Amino acid sequence: MLVLSSPSGAGKTTLSRKLLATDERITMSVSVTTRPPRPGEVEGKDYYFVDVPTFQRMREEGELLEHAVVFDNLYGTPRAAVEAALSAGRDVLFDIDWQGTQQLGESAQQDLVKVFLLPPSAADLEQRLRTRAQDSEEVVHQRMAKASDEISHYTEYDYILINHEVEDSLAKLTAILQAERLKRRRLTGLSSFVKSLRDAL
Amino acid sequence: MLVLSSPSGAGKTTLSRKLLATDERITMSVSVTTRPPRPGEVEGKDYYFVDVPTFQRMREEGELLEHAVVFDNLYGTPRAAVEAALSAGRDVLFDIDWQGTQQLGESAQQDLVKVFLLPPSAADLEQRLRTRAQDSEEVVHQRMAKASDEISHYTEYDYILINHEVEDSLAKLTAILQAERLKRRRLTGLSSFVKSLRDAL
Repeated sequence: MLVLSSPSGAGKTTLSRKLLATDERITMSVSVTTRPPRPGEVEGKDYYFVDVPTFQRMREEGELLEHAVVFDNLYGTPRAAVEAALSAGRDVLFDIDWQGTQQLGESAQQDLVKVFLLPPSAADLEQRLRTRAQDSEEVVHQRMAKASDEISHYTEYDYILINHEVEDSLAKLTAILQAERLKRRRLTGLSSFVKSLRDAL
Repeated sequence: MLVLSSPSGAGKTTLSRKLLATDERITMSVSVTTRPPRPGEVEGKDYYFVDVPTFQRMREEGELLEHAVVFDNLYGTPRAAVEAALSAGRDVLFDIDWQGTQQLGESAQQDLVKVFLLPPSAADLEQRLRTRAQDSEEVVHQRMAKASDEISHYTEYDYILINHEVEDSLAKLTAILQAERLKRRRLTGLSSFVKSLRDAL
């Protein structure tokens, strides 16, 4: 389970898409949200768009692995899809904020790798928010203020990427994923491989 | 501090040389040893070759970070060169066995990343030992028996590489090094960068 968090506008969505396009072993966890779709967003690919009563029913029935409130909208991670992917031996990428990350981490059985993406500068973050044509000036200001709070949670993450350039960040994120897959405790079948090796020596 | 351990014949020396040739930020820790040089080995590059009294003096005077006995020969890591490299902000690669790794890890202030290299099969290991022209048949048998003991210590390492092909292992080792450098606790200047970022938002 690979969590990628960042303040809005740091380039997380672009980076996630590039990782999914280049790494065959990872699946995106598609969140449910009560916020309206932005232009170009696709139901079931970017989000599952639901109304508030539906979201609340899912939460009450334990169907969400984590949930959070961001700018008065509700976001959550459907449990079933994640569990199915993990059972099939796939890695799962989560595009969630610090609130959701904390909730995922609270389940002791979860094997989380937490990456925080930072913008190279405040000016860069503001520019990215402004070039998102669909956000109003008010939303931009709201997100700028919120970014500072989100960033304050960087200390809760294992790895930090400063997003100077997306291809460079992709190479670094890929290295993190590759390295984490080589950790001894994650290598399935290792102890029987070592046993057969030692028996043959 | 990156430790690379393996049984003799698993390809550790070749992999280390390739890493040093491709990564500018890492320096090899050159060990002292009382064993005689093999053909082609260069004093000060492969090892510092010393006699037993010199080795014992170094050990008694605290000049060695770790030391071990392997096949009746003494091996040790000179402290001064490692500390100088680390102070200069460089990473240091250690080609040492499980005994030395344990000793390095005992100093609580050490920031170790431990990688264990396994051969793809026992037959592969034996073949590599036999094609080392300088080793006698007796030494080959001794090393085969010793390999099994060395391998039993794989559980003390963070990462496991199975050395199917050296370029593939180099890519994996490079990914481990790149990822470890992106760990939050190793990023110097991060807290002041985040502070300036938040102040500007």
